[in-house]
Amino acid sequence: MQIEPVVDSTFDYLFKFTQEQVQAFADLTGDNNPIHLDAEYAATTSFKKPIIHGMLGATVFTKVLGTQFPGFGSIYLKQTLEFLRPMFVETEYKAIFKIISINPDKHIAEISTEIMDVTTKKVTTRGVATMINQEKF
Amino acid sequence: MQIEPVVDSTFDYLFKFTQEQVQAFADLTGDNNPIHLDAEYAATTSFKKPIIHGMLGATVFTKVLGTQFPGFGSIYLKQTLEFLRPMFVETEYKAIFKIISINPDKHIAEISTEIMDVTTKKVTTRGVATMINQEKF
Repeated sequence: MQIEPVVDSTFDYLFKFTQEQVQAFADLTGDNNPIHLDAEYAATTSFKKPIIHGMLGATVFTKVLGTQFPGFGSIYLKQTLEFLRPMFVETEYKAIFKIISINPDKHIAEISTEIMDVTTKKVTTRGVATMINQEKF
Repeated sequence: MQIEPVVDSTFDYLFKFTQEQVQAFADLTGDNNPIHLDAEYAATTSFKKPIIHGMLGATVFTKVLGTQFPGFGSIYLKQTLEFLRPMFVETEYKAIFKIISINPDKHIAEISTEIMDVTTKKVTTRGVATMINQEKF
């Protein structure tokens, strides 16, 4: 007998970040690397303009996984992150979640997590989340 | 000929978080899962009290890697994260960084990243960072 999970198998979430959010993340975490904050410095690098902290981009995963898919009651066990391309402020991104596998005995799922630039369709961040949720898996 | 890296092979960093910082992370990211914010709800869970967002704990990695070890000029390529034990506010933690390998041709290093509870000596978060730094590696 195949057990159907009580969540859909995929979930998409559109988002963008502002420079104010990048500054707030820098203030909160202490990561004030000028590549994220200083447009003049960033202009001297191969990126040409400030890039978002990779970890700030990845916070969309904890937000969606913790509050929407699968949502409340979830506990994060693992997350892998590959920062494939830079992310920029005021740019529309889509986070794409796909359930890879569910272990119903342990209530644990592996979920593919990806961030895609909505305009270019290129993937900026890729990884796999492992979540436990007693009610959803 | 063995090339000596221009950074030490290990780095430690002591830190703690406040409930205000947890709230700021929730506000910034939108991850308002009550397990992090609501003491009454958290009391009904196996954790008994609010736990820090795993990703907030992991921001110590981006902070130290981006600003101190190896520091400015670093670009994050990958980070794996295992959230082994819950983390709490007003608790002293130590982040421990150890260089695993350096590829001097590509200026890329793999760095073991760990968070340890200073009192219990238990590891709460474990992973590996992959960083590029043209000057340091």
